[in-house]
Amino acid sequence: MSPTTRAFTDRLGIALPIVQAPMAGFQAGRLAAAAGAAGALASLPGAALDARRLADESALVRAAGVPVNLNFFCHAVPAPDAERQRAWRAVLAPYYAELGVDPATIQEGPGRLPFGDEALDAVLTLAPAVVSFHFGLPAAAIVTRLQQSGAQVWASATTVDEARWLDERGVDAVIAQGLEAGGHRGMFLTDDLTTQLGTYALVPQVVAAVKVPVIAAGGVADAKGVAAALALGAAAVQVGTAFLRCPEATTSGPHRAALASPAAAHTACTNLFSGRPARGIVNRLMRDLGCMRADVPPFPTAVNALAPLRAAAEARGIGDCSPLWSGQNAGGARDVPAADIVRGLAARL
Amino acid sequence: MSPTTRAFTDRLGIALPIVQAPMAGFQAGRLAAAAGAAGALASLPGAALDARRLADESALVRAAGVPVNLNFFCHAVPAPDAERQRAWRAVLAPYYAELGVDPATIQEGPGRLPFGDEALDAVLTLAPAVVSFHFGLPAAAIVTRLQQSGAQVWASATTVDEARWLDERGVDAVIAQGLEAGGHRGMFLTDDLTTQLGTYALVPQVVAAVKVPVIAAGGVADAKGVAAALALGAAAVQVGTAFLRCPEATTSGPHRAALASPAAAHTACTNLFSGRPARGIVNRLMRDLGCMRADVPPFPTAVNALAPLRAAAEARGIGDCSPLWSGQNAGGARDVPAADIVRGLAARL
Repeated sequence: MSPTTRAFTDRLGIALPIVQAPMAGFQAGRLAAAAGAAGALASLPGAALDARRLADESALVRAAGVPVNLNFFCHAVPAPDAERQRAWRAVLAPYYAELGVDPATIQEGPGRLPFGDEALDAVLTLAPAVVSFHFGLPAAAIVTRLQQSGAQVWASATTVDEARWLDERGVDAVIAQGLEAGGHRGMFLTDDLTTQLGTYALVPQVVAAVKVPVIAAGGVADAKGVAAALALGAAAVQVGTAFLRCPEATTSGPHRAALASPAAAHTACTNLFSGRPARGIVNRLMRDLGCMRADVPPFPTAVNALAPLRAAAEARGIGDCSPLWSGQNAGGARDVPAADIVRGLAARL
Repeated sequence: MSPTTRAFTDRLGIALPIVQAPMAGFQAGRLAAAAGAAGALASLPGAALDARRLADESALVRAAGVPVNLNFFCHAVPAPDAERQRAWRAVLAPYYAELGVDPATIQEGPGRLPFGDEALDAVLTLAPAVVSFHFGLPAAAIVTRLQQSGAQVWASATTVDEARWLDERGVDAVIAQGLEAGGHRGMFLTDDLTTQLGTYALVPQVVAAVKVPVIAAGGVADAKGVAAALALGAAAVQVGTAFLRCPEATTSGPHRAALASPAAAHTACTNLFSGRPARGIVNRLMRDLGCMRADVPPFPTAVNALAPLRAAAEARGIGDCSPLWSGQNAGGARDVPAADIVRGLAARL
């Protein structure tokens, strides 16, 4: 390992320059603790856990004796827009009918909340080693309080401009999220998907542009991928998709089946499931409606209209209406414990 | 260098596992000879050179005492469609007016021809070390005759399916063209851009899927990029954008200026210039009309309508109507001789 990588792991107190990616909706403490015990940095998706769950799941990680990264979203909360929701439900009407879902049962409300003062107090009591952000950063005062508590603050960049923006605001590391990555694009200075760079182009340009360590994300699926990222100048890698089939993940049956099937060869960025572009395996809803649509309600309120469709379909073992998040290299995902995935990733270090 | 890489360079008789990418319209023998003399594989864009030019430019390379790769296109020639051309010229009408171009001066005709029996005879007399193809392969009998002549046959793959298809047809190497690459996407089994993989995801999956050596293309801009590609299992790399500002390239002034400017940070795939998706720096035409349009005439006939606009604008030093091909990592391109670019790429080998 290079001096940069060694400094990165030493500062965190972890054995390996591998971050288990936080995956909102697909994992909690069990996966994090297993990945952490194997030498990676354990991550929890704070955006998908209320304060009590976050404390409970953090305790699971703490019991493994390893540091934790708590991840949060930093989106702007959109104003309610009943007309847009109504129009979107009309688009989805054939699916409600087919799956026997009563649209009147759809939950209203803002869905996932961005990180703010309330979450801050809860997080500070958990003393995480890292607090990482997607979709930008919270207010400067929050970043400062987190860092004063001893936590590192990281955030995702999908362009060189975003990386510079984060570096100027004092983050401790930048996660360079290449276009190959599964799940939500962390983009926050642009909503133009053509600006999104592949990992191979993004990582070295971000390394050249910022002062802080860079964590490469997107397409890293095995030991060769780890070696390549370090060769490109990354201090570490972040890996998500490779953990999705682990028994410790909470990935649904249809999602696991899709990841293990030839369907995983074709992923695309879609805003259908949440209102923001995220990469997932192309499924029926994406094929039927198109992957990117202007009439989808804004993030995160698009989740509501699809939630009962997703539940009804998944109950029948069908992933047609589910976000089947996956990166462009699902080959690293296997039906093995997370520790085996970590060991495989670390095999050339 | 690994045994795979060493075997690859030894078989070709070149010093370095670096292929100077063939770039139709932006280089000929001068760049190829310079890159070849520095230890890379010299490439000529056969698609942009008639038989006489091809012979002359090949002689330049031969004079440098190095092997040559002749590259050709394998597209299907579209049927003439006057109505579609007329409709497309109507879209472009404001630009004809602005630049003082008389649409009556537009050249008709099929434009660049795919590789066929006629080109075959000319190519065989030139005894290239490699004949490489973009957009698929020519007829099996042509592939066989080329290989019987002693040439290796290579072709580009943009998906794992395409790589398998080429491997099954007996190519000697597969060029894994990641989404980061500048210029035309080599895609030929699909026209769906969402199938296109980033280099980081494509290369290891192609390496795992085919029997033959894999050449990584897309985003490789410096010695770190070369090292990363070899770590991912590639036998060699193909580099294009890094050569575009060399004095030996025929890149236009506006194109060179764009590559050296902040504009190079934003590239996109566009079919406006040729009818097929190709990656270039976003310019006025792409912003005005949108990068991908269904009403563009099919490749290569879209070139005709734009050619006089491009010429008129470039004569004024403006790249608004030009294909400013570039990959997503233009940082490797500098105003230095091609030999310096090759030396930089090879610095960690």
